[in-house]
Amino acid sequence: MSQSNKQILLETRPLGLPKSTNFKFVQTDAPQPGAGELLLKTLYLSLDPSVRGRMNEGKSYIEPIAIGEVLAGATVSQVIQSDHPDFSVDDFVLSENGWQEYAVSDGTGLRKLDPRKQPVSQALGVTGVPGLAAYVGMLDIGKPQSGDTVVVSSAAGAVGSIAGQIAKLQGCRVIGIAGTPTKCDHVVNKLGFDDCINYKSDGFLSQLANACPDGVDVYFENVGGRVLEAVCGHLNTGARVPLCGGIAYYNLTELPPGPDRVPLLMRSLLVNRVLMQGFIVQDHLDREAAFLDDMTAWMENGDIVYHEDRVEGLQNAPEAFKGMLMGRNLGKHIVRVALEPGKTQI
Amino acid sequence: MSQSNKQILLETRPLGLPKSTNFKFVQTDAPQPGAGELLLKTLYLSLDPSVRGRMNEGKSYIEPIAIGEVLAGATVSQVIQSDHPDFSVDDFVLSENGWQEYAVSDGTGLRKLDPRKQPVSQALGVTGVPGLAAYVGMLDIGKPQSGDTVVVSSAAGAVGSIAGQIAKLQGCRVIGIAGTPTKCDHVVNKLGFDDCINYKSDGFLSQLANACPDGVDVYFENVGGRVLEAVCGHLNTGARVPLCGGIAYYNLTELPPGPDRVPLLMRSLLVNRVLMQGFIVQDHLDREAAFLDDMTAWMENGDIVYHEDRVEGLQNAPEAFKGMLMGRNLGKHIVRVALEPGKTQI
Repeated sequence: MSQSNKQILLETRPLGLPKSTNFKFVQTDAPQPGAGELLLKTLYLSLDPSVRGRMNEGKSYIEPIAIGEVLAGATVSQVIQSDHPDFSVDDFVLSENGWQEYAVSDGTGLRKLDPRKQPVSQALGVTGVPGLAAYVGMLDIGKPQSGDTVVVSSAAGAVGSIAGQIAKLQGCRVIGIAGTPTKCDHVVNKLGFDDCINYKSDGFLSQLANACPDGVDVYFENVGGRVLEAVCGHLNTGARVPLCGGIAYYNLTELPPGPDRVPLLMRSLLVNRVLMQGFIVQDHLDREAAFLDDMTAWMENGDIVYHEDRVEGLQNAPEAFKGMLMGRNLGKHIVRVALEPGKTQI
Repeated sequence: MSQSNKQILLETRPLGLPKSTNFKFVQTDAPQPGAGELLLKTLYLSLDPSVRGRMNEGKSYIEPIAIGEVLAGATVSQVIQSDHPDFSVDDFVLSENGWQEYAVSDGTGLRKLDPRKQPVSQALGVTGVPGLAAYVGMLDIGKPQSGDTVVVSSAAGAVGSIAGQIAKLQGCRVIGIAGTPTKCDHVVNKLGFDDCINYKSDGFLSQLANACPDGVDVYFENVGGRVLEAVCGHLNTGARVPLCGGIAYYNLTELPPGPDRVPLLMRSLLVNRVLMQGFIVQDHLDREAAFLDDMTAWMENGDIVYHEDRVEGLQNAPEAFKGMLMGRNLGKHIVRVALEPGKTQI
């Protein structure tokens, strides 16, 4: 029984923000699992800003996606055939199958998910890579102390929303930065940050200053650009800046107009003896067990609120991905590719 | 017996490179020590780039120097009167008396120097603050491992020259960056770096690339600007960048012309998961004892070569200071303010 398999491939490399012509929709036969293998059906696909970097030619965090290759992404999948002793039909797994409906796996790297414990899609966010990024970046690099002022950019996004809540659990005053009034409202009233500032508002700089009267001890950085510069003006002596992303830069086709603002950044790092550290989750998988223990407990206690922004149907992934790069999502952005068994709606 | 005391005061705050009008020469009576106090005579004055920051109004590492105040600087001084049980006339001490001939002290913070063990002026350099900066920055932040490629800017300067030699002692391949062929020759042939590149030469970028075929694991940063940008293009995954200074920025009166190069810097830090950390010696005085033990042993073994660039006479301090900010010194720049007892020449 051969399934048809819709896939979205990288057709051309984007210049700037991705366009529909960068993506190619194809329909092939689903692959057939061999001895010891599984056939996986994608239920949910994660949309990740880091994929934008991998659509370029040069080295980013990891290897670029090749032209003609399926676009990359974590997936929550259902086992629909199994010749593997550890997996049964109807098991749910966290996998890396990318932008397609079906994929074969030999079981390597799969994480089994228990739908009775939590909604399986959460493994793409709060209990997955974005959650671990928030955990490692905030706790291991940011090292927030009770009473610290912590600023989190992309505060309504998949990572920032979790990072800020983790800082709140450490007894910090947490200020979010986001790009719309709706997001700011969500960050304060749903996620429990102490304040959230719209970086697109005219009063951004003075609002930031007012929100951080004692300076900034930890800046969890997801964006770069003018937000980074503004926060750097408030860093305290010995501040820590975990660098998780720089979404303001991902679609640049040329450097922004001058003047060159590097001296401002360097001066702040030097005068304030700041630690700034880039990191990616893949270097910190030794923290996954502790992270899952803590995050599971926090979720069960209601200490961490998690919000998904779902789009329906694989065919809408490119537009949703582009929207995410423009900051249109609220919370973790995922694509519902197929219905979970027993569910009838998003 | 009242001594006359020549002093150099901050007359006006410089805009850009200091000018003679920023300095005021005065001659007063030397202060009289009170009960329990010492009168100190300056023999050697340290010229430090960080003083440039303190000539500005805003906060730098430490408080700005006030208008009309004596310019700041570490000094090697001789005790010429003592009412303090721990110090005798003719003792040599490391002090912070600034740009003047005489000063009174209650003994706080003084370090006694033994001229039989080493030339006392070395306490302004290799066994003083510049040496400790090199030690803490290279070992504690840079964490060089045997086989690493280490790049040091201002490689012929007071801190860089020591930092690079410390990295050599850890088994690293060490590349210096300096601003003249003479300095580069000194760095390789006297200090024992593996290579040294003149950042003002036309071929700088390609020479740097050739000198670092395996990328850069530690970049000891003293300068900023185009040197920083060039080295950032070669940072390896997990590289460490101790930020000790940014002399390219100290005399800026406005930001350099565009484009804005922050995205290049941030991309390198993020993609390569770089740790960049500003530091100042005053935060790391707990390392002084270990530093002095190690450095004394290294000096005795001939493992570290130390070079002083001396200028004669306090009246020449402003011009020498300006020259240092323009990169004219080779090694640690000091002013011989008065003759050591028993010495007749520089």
